[in-house]
Amino acid sequence: MDLHFHMPTEIFFGRDCVSAYGERLKALGHSALIVTGKSSKINGALGDLCIALDKNGQTYTVFDRVKPNPTIACVREGIALLKSANADFIVGLGGGSPMDAAKAIALLAVADRADEDVFSGGYGIYALPMAHIPTTAGTGSEVTPYAILTNDVQETKTSITSPALFPKFAFLDGKYLKNAPRSTLIYPALDAFSHAVEGILSRKGNEISNNFACESLKVLYPILKKMSVTAPIENDLDALLYASMLAGITIAQSGTTAVHGMGYYLTYFYGIDHGRANALLLGETLKLCKKKDVSLLGKIEDACKESADEICVVLDRLLGKREDIPKDRLLDFAKHSVFNKNIKKSAYEPTPEEIKHIYLRSFCKND
Amino acid sequence: MDLHFHMPTEIFFGRDCVSAYGERLKALGHSALIVTGKSSKINGALGDLCIALDKNGQTYTVFDRVKPNPTIACVREGIALLKSANADFIVGLGGGSPMDAAKAIALLAVADRADEDVFSGGYGIYALPMAHIPTTAGTGSEVTPYAILTNDVQETKTSITSPALFPKFAFLDGKYLKNAPRSTLIYPALDAFSHAVEGILSRKGNEISNNFACESLKVLYPILKKMSVTAPIENDLDALLYASMLAGITIAQSGTTAVHGMGYYLTYFYGIDHGRANALLLGETLKLCKKKDVSLLGKIEDACKESADEICVVLDRLLGKREDIPKDRLLDFAKHSVFNKNIKKSAYEPTPEEIKHIYLRSFCKND
Repeated sequence: MDLHFHMPTEIFFGRDCVSAYGERLKALGHSALIVTGKSSKINGALGDLCIALDKNGQTYTVFDRVKPNPTIACVREGIALLKSANADFIVGLGGGSPMDAAKAIALLAVADRADEDVFSGGYGIYALPMAHIPTTAGTGSEVTPYAILTNDVQETKTSITSPALFPKFAFLDGKYLKNAPRSTLIYPALDAFSHAVEGILSRKGNEISNNFACESLKVLYPILKKMSVTAPIENDLDALLYASMLAGITIAQSGTTAVHGMGYYLTYFYGIDHGRANALLLGETLKLCKKKDVSLLGKIEDACKESADEICVVLDRLLGKREDIPKDRLLDFAKHSVFNKNIKKSAYEPTPEEIKHIYLRSFCKND
Repeated sequence: MDLHFHMPTEIFFGRDCVSAYGERLKALGHSALIVTGKSSKINGALGDLCIALDKNGQTYTVFDRVKPNPTIACVREGIALLKSANADFIVGLGGGSPMDAAKAIALLAVADRADEDVFSGGYGIYALPMAHIPTTAGTGSEVTPYAILTNDVQETKTSITSPALFPKFAFLDGKYLKNAPRSTLIYPALDAFSHAVEGILSRKGNEISNNFACESLKVLYPILKKMSVTAPIENDLDALLYASMLAGITIAQSGTTAVHGMGYYLTYFYGIDHGRANALLLGETLKLCKKKDVSLLGKIEDACKESADEICVVLDRLLGKREDIPKDRLLDFAKHSVFNKNIKKSAYEPTPEEIKHIYLRSFCKND
């Protein structure tokens, strides 16, 4: 048995945890840059955070200009604001985009590099201290060492990985999800599902990450099934957030697989939501695993208590009508995906032909 | 759902992990104090560590005078050696005693306090950086924020708790257990079992700690059963070490319960091995849980795939003949245990009468 486990983030999970444990933020510094989008003002998270910071006597500056799929330019804008405000720590508040932007700001603020070197690795071990407060249930970024940014040179999204990107604290409260629109629940939930499934299907997975993944699936899959038949899930929001966090702890160990690598092109070129993009490719990936007799598939089926075919039906229902993407574009993505570092990490290691097949069958059922 | 999770130690588990990942020790400092007992020279762990430190260009001083149930005097001796050697980090190497002594040295070296204040809390957030290498499978100290020392004032053993006591790294390699005598396998294994069981029975346990505990029991209990009928377990040593680590991660969240609180008196006054002491009291505790219909007992039985009564039979077999302890001494321990802080943390919160009953029935079956 060979195993590596590292997840240093201290987790506070539960109703009103920002108020209850906000005092712990004192340890991070004197002045916060709050990196967020627009919805944290509405869902109450920003209000709770500001009250906690005020109570601690900490000042703060709000950077709320993070859009989905953050760019290097957005990160630079954040760093400029951080410096002008003399902020010495960061709170990432929102979905994956604000949290990932927050991480990149925390890292590049202490060790800047030119745009062309942002994705070239060797990030060192320091970043500004961070706390994260997710307000969607999917990305798991609050417990991972990854920041995923738009990579315009390679025309995809690329992850920056460093242990320095683990937040010091994560505060998770399902109440922030209460008024989220349906798509803001379904697509992140599909992302979390993809994390748990890919964590199990990753060659870097191990006993501990698999346990986190299976636990995540046990909680998450029944909720996905409910969502697929539009049954109410307002009582499942905490469980959803919990499952997404467990899936985050999973990929913090295992990384993701070909599904994520392939999905990024769909997001970059067609603006398809990240969670949806993964899920669009996941069904055919599961079918490939079945065809190739990948034994790890059994773990997924056991945790979901359904067969891969049944899981595909649920995914199909949640995804609805698929995007029209011309065949030559899909073949183009397939050509580029062959070189993605995630391919070799996949226990189902798809051949170039299989990658093509996944893309085509995911959008044109007759190919 | 309310949940707190924190376990920042980076874990390297597997054959020859000290050689494979020893380079990571570079991050800890220039000169190590290696805190250990006598057996690490024999089981190969000290040799592996010294080779890794030499390769890193790090110097080291060996403090091998740690005896079972370390005292404050032993910790002071270690601090003196650390200072005279100008060591700036610590490696705890061995069973629970060297690892716990190492932690206390790491903490008190940066913030000394008088003997009478050692257990009085408020330890601050700093300690010298540490790596731990367990060579027994039981204590889980490599992944906990606890150091347990002999407390001569209160005539028991008492834990020092601080997040600063989480080692930075833990290296776990089952090969160091290979030539351990039977008692050095059974008693620590019983300690780990007690950790997993008590973690589930603790009021501070949560979903994540329970998952770690159940996983630990699933791996550990079948090995305990083998040991109870003296079946060979040389192929189970890695699994044993893994289960003990999982149980450690459990109690890092949940703490222990009345069993540990009560067991310390047996160790302090009768020199009974710590793991054995817990196990001596565990059977009657499980029976009490059954009587009081503590629902968490079901989790333990499910994970072990046996009933509490069957578990007790296995414990009895492993423990063999119990110590002769006069009834008045047991009543004395019961009187003191009533005030132990662990009592209230136990989901089975034993009444003073029940504490008395556990002590008496554990040693005099007719009482």
